[in-house]
Amino acid sequence: MNAKKRKGSAVERNIVGKLRDKGFAVVRAPASGSKRKDPIPDIIALKSGVIILIEMKSRKDKEGKIYVRREQAEGIMEFARKSGGTLFLGVKKPGVLKFIPFDKLRRTETGNYVADSEIEGLDLEDLVRLVEAKVSKTLDNFL
Amino acid sequence: MNAKKRKGSAVERNIVGKLRDKGFAVVRAPASGSKRKDPIPDIIALKSGVIILIEMKSRKDKEGKIYVRREQAEGIMEFARKSGGTLFLGVKKPGVLKFIPFDKLRRTETGNYVADSEIEGLDLEDLVRLVEAKVSKTLDNFL
Repeated sequence: MNAKKRKGSAVERNIVGKLRDKGFAVVRAPASGSKRKDPIPDIIALKSGVIILIEMKSRKDKEGKIYVRREQAEGIMEFARKSGGTLFLGVKKPGVLKFIPFDKLRRTETGNYVADSEIEGLDLEDLVRLVEAKVSKTLDNFL
Repeated sequence: MNAKKRKGSAVERNIVGKLRDKGFAVVRAPASGSKRKDPIPDIIALKSGVIILIEMKSRKDKEGKIYVRREQAEGIMEFARKSGGTLFLGVKKPGVLKFIPFDKLRRTETGNYVADSEIEGLDLEDLVRLVEAKVSKTLDNFL
């Protein structure tokens, strides 16, 4: 494992730990980043029937854009569509951790997906609150 | 990896492949069977918001009972409770593959969980149909 992957893993482990502390059932996709037939987002977080999928990307500089290659993006979007879950791009930069709904990303002419540096996202607390609001709404349907 | 684990993995891969063919988004838990802090069922299968969790156990003889140790059972039941998903024990014996809802298992005095050989379960087709019925019911709530 090279330094970049190792750092990526540490960020993921940290997020997974925090989501577990907030009562989520969480699984990290196996063999993340390696060549595989069935693209799976890096983190699958479940809570009371709500499905959150997160693909993580890190950058060392604060200003740069983050690209998700077309092939990978389409694979994980298809996974999300089948699952009925909500897909986020998790962006980690120095001093920044934000979660961008995948459908807010900019699509380039060649079909890649881009998070421009100014794009807004949720922080981890916001993401947790969003899920808890969905859970309450789902419960309301039964009352 | 020893022969038993290798065979277990082949069974799991087969089930995962079939669920994918039926339109599920599926992930196998990483490091299955190894010692870990957060027990995760072997297979997580998602379809249109329905969450199915499967712990697989194999036996070489057709008649024997299948035990799930208390510690493991409680861990994956807790994962299932948090997720809002439905937990099954997947039982693989020669010529037999059945999925038993975890709450149908017999609990021993020491807290282990047992699938007696005569216990009924769903086959894979039944399991898929069950999920599709749940998906339809969920959609009905929006109509």
